[in-house]
Amino acid sequence: MQQHILSGFKILDFTHVLAGPTATRLMVEMGAEVIKVELPPSGDSARLLPTIINGRSAYYVQQNRGKKSVCIDVKSPRGLAVIEGLIKQVDVVIENFSPGAAGRLGIGWKRVHELNPRAVMCSISAFGQQGPLSVLPGYDYIAQAYAGVTGMIGEAGGPPVLPMLALGDVNTGVHAACAIGFALLHRERSGKGQYIDMALLDMYAHSHELNIALYSMTGKSPSRAGHHHYAVCPLGLFKGKEHYLCVITLETQWGPLCTAMGHPELGRDERYNTNARRVERAPEVIAMIQAWIDSMPNDEATLAVLEAARVPCAPVLTIEEVVKHPHMQQRGTVRQINDPKVGTVTLPGMPLHFSDFPHNIPLDTSHLGENNAEVLSSLLGYSTGEIEALETLGVLQSNSAT
Amino acid sequence: MQQHILSGFKILDFTHVLAGPTATRLMVEMGAEVIKVELPPSGDSARLLPTIINGRSAYYVQQNRGKKSVCIDVKSPRGLAVIEGLIKQVDVVIENFSPGAAGRLGIGWKRVHELNPRAVMCSISAFGQQGPLSVLPGYDYIAQAYAGVTGMIGEAGGPPVLPMLALGDVNTGVHAACAIGFALLHRERSGKGQYIDMALLDMYAHSHELNIALYSMTGKSPSRAGHHHYAVCPLGLFKGKEHYLCVITLETQWGPLCTAMGHPELGRDERYNTNARRVERAPEVIAMIQAWIDSMPNDEATLAVLEAARVPCAPVLTIEEVVKHPHMQQRGTVRQINDPKVGTVTLPGMPLHFSDFPHNIPLDTSHLGENNAEVLSSLLGYSTGEIEALETLGVLQSNSAT
Repeated sequence: MQQHILSGFKILDFTHVLAGPTATRLMVEMGAEVIKVELPPSGDSARLLPTIINGRSAYYVQQNRGKKSVCIDVKSPRGLAVIEGLIKQVDVVIENFSPGAAGRLGIGWKRVHELNPRAVMCSISAFGQQGPLSVLPGYDYIAQAYAGVTGMIGEAGGPPVLPMLALGDVNTGVHAACAIGFALLHRERSGKGQYIDMALLDMYAHSHELNIALYSMTGKSPSRAGHHHYAVCPLGLFKGKEHYLCVITLETQWGPLCTAMGHPELGRDERYNTNARRVERAPEVIAMIQAWIDSMPNDEATLAVLEAARVPCAPVLTIEEVVKHPHMQQRGTVRQINDPKVGTVTLPGMPLHFSDFPHNIPLDTSHLGENNAEVLSSLLGYSTGEIEALETLGVLQSNSAT
Repeated sequence: MQQHILSGFKILDFTHVLAGPTATRLMVEMGAEVIKVELPPSGDSARLLPTIINGRSAYYVQQNRGKKSVCIDVKSPRGLAVIEGLIKQVDVVIENFSPGAAGRLGIGWKRVHELNPRAVMCSISAFGQQGPLSVLPGYDYIAQAYAGVTGMIGEAGGPPVLPMLALGDVNTGVHAACAIGFALLHRERSGKGQYIDMALLDMYAHSHELNIALYSMTGKSPSRAGHHHYAVCPLGLFKGKEHYLCVITLETQWGPLCTAMGHPELGRDERYNTNARRVERAPEVIAMIQAWIDSMPNDEATLAVLEAARVPCAPVLTIEEVVKHPHMQQRGTVRQINDPKVGTVTLPGMPLHFSDFPHNIPLDTSHLGENNAEVLSSLLGYSTGEIEALETLGVLQSNSAT
């Protein structure tokens, strides 16, 4: 019997900070045994990111709950021998070092495949393992800029704007987990592992549902357009009484919107009755809707009228409003977790909901090296004496203050 | 022998426009047989989205290459009988109607599970299948606003800004494909199908790697901060000679950045030598870096100096620059496809790279109902006469002009 969707699967996780840890966090939330290998002396640098309470980073907790931590000096021959033993025991190896670094450590794809032909390996990087950009150091926003995404965000003519969340790292982690899942599925039938080369750049470029094709067909680069869409009208943000309000009207919803605003005749008006015409007259259309919103007593009333007319609309919520919203709580879009050091923290929920398995399962966070002995004895059969010897040599390290 | 990772898997695809079609597009690019069910008279409304050339939408082509199109009047008893036959033959059923609509059509999870207990079913919606918000109509930006993401994008104190690409729909499609892959993996061992309830809202909330935890620990909502990060300095966009330039400096890179700018003494200056101190003095730090960039002859020179110092940096590229960039072409981050009606179009590449299978495989786009006869005869054993009878009755429809 499987207790969860990935029960029985083992992941050897060399990742740090965000994109990689997101991939393995999803897998641990699906029941996989994730063995996180951290390098001495301080392990994943996310352990040093704020907010730190009682020596533990809440940022680290969010990304690493449920993972077993082994802190191993991979650069020592004995450390590498332990790692090679672990590679033979697992289903997946994942890393997000700079391209080439895993190979130099002795854990590149070629070696992993020799040690364990059934293992699926995934590398995550900003630009991929090869090509002219692969040599550059990269983070989320760096790949975002190169993928033409940053240039699509901001007021027209003004500077681009950075989204204040890691859309790229998190969703690259999801892409990586997705590829790993299908590679494992293939392995069930073929018996063969394979290698996945995941890049932040590709995740971002993949998100252009229209811009790249539009450029290639017109020869003109679409660009950022502030808070109203360049190709659909109305699709934008209006100033409500308490919030900015997002209002979207595709063809079938223009009539209902006009009726909702008390001007059913505008729904039939030939100046405005197709999206193309409304885009041409966007300033007029936007001004009309803004004037109607200005005439309403409050956002609740505005949204109620639009919702009754089935016009897609939403308040732009603050983070506080998201956390307190009854829908988010009920669905588990956000959830509270308890950590013995950090205390109670609200985090985003597990985004994948499976009917046959529990959602948002409780998981604990390990301090650096907390699971050294457990992992080496259970997976590799090391004796207490052998483990202590490796600790004495500094091949295994730990820090219970993290 | 499998020709690709999902060869032999069949997907019955009731999705339209973007999030759902993205999920099945990934699976078709991995070799699955995707049977796209379109409703008469005009099928997926994405077929009507610009740019339309020779009757075919390039937008539709991007999302639906490689899928077989069957156009079936699901609301007729005979049409539903065909669908029920197909449900029994497939591995996955996926839909993104409004919550409840699939059930009313007779293809809800309960019925799918009765017909085919091995089938995995995935529903995609803005807010999920239950809960107070689930009754609202929703699109990408609507879920984005409710998830607290829109509020994190824009200049501080100004209106929020809408990213001009469908980060939410596309990445919800990837989340959905990810969940389907793991559910199929589970089925290989358990024999059981199950149901996945995927929401755009959850995908967006999941992307808050920090904001939700930060609010819960401080009681203060983080908010949008323009083009320089609120918690890391320097992490932002500077005005270069030809582009905006993204520059990111974490702890280890501050010294090298100062040296690269010709001021090694600043790397040791106690006013600036930790991120916390730089965030406190962010206007000074930003001004220093901007002044140095202003002193450089062009972006190429600026980037070369930063790259040599291993300081993460990037030009904010236009879509045209992305398409023409040698790295993007070499890696297949963008690719050219040929469609007999639309012609040659550049599209984002397949973001998942598997070592054992070809990348960016050629795939054709079907017109509405193009594969009616092929699918009904090969999967259900319908005779030519039976298929023609269904065509005469209007249960099967097609339009070769699409």
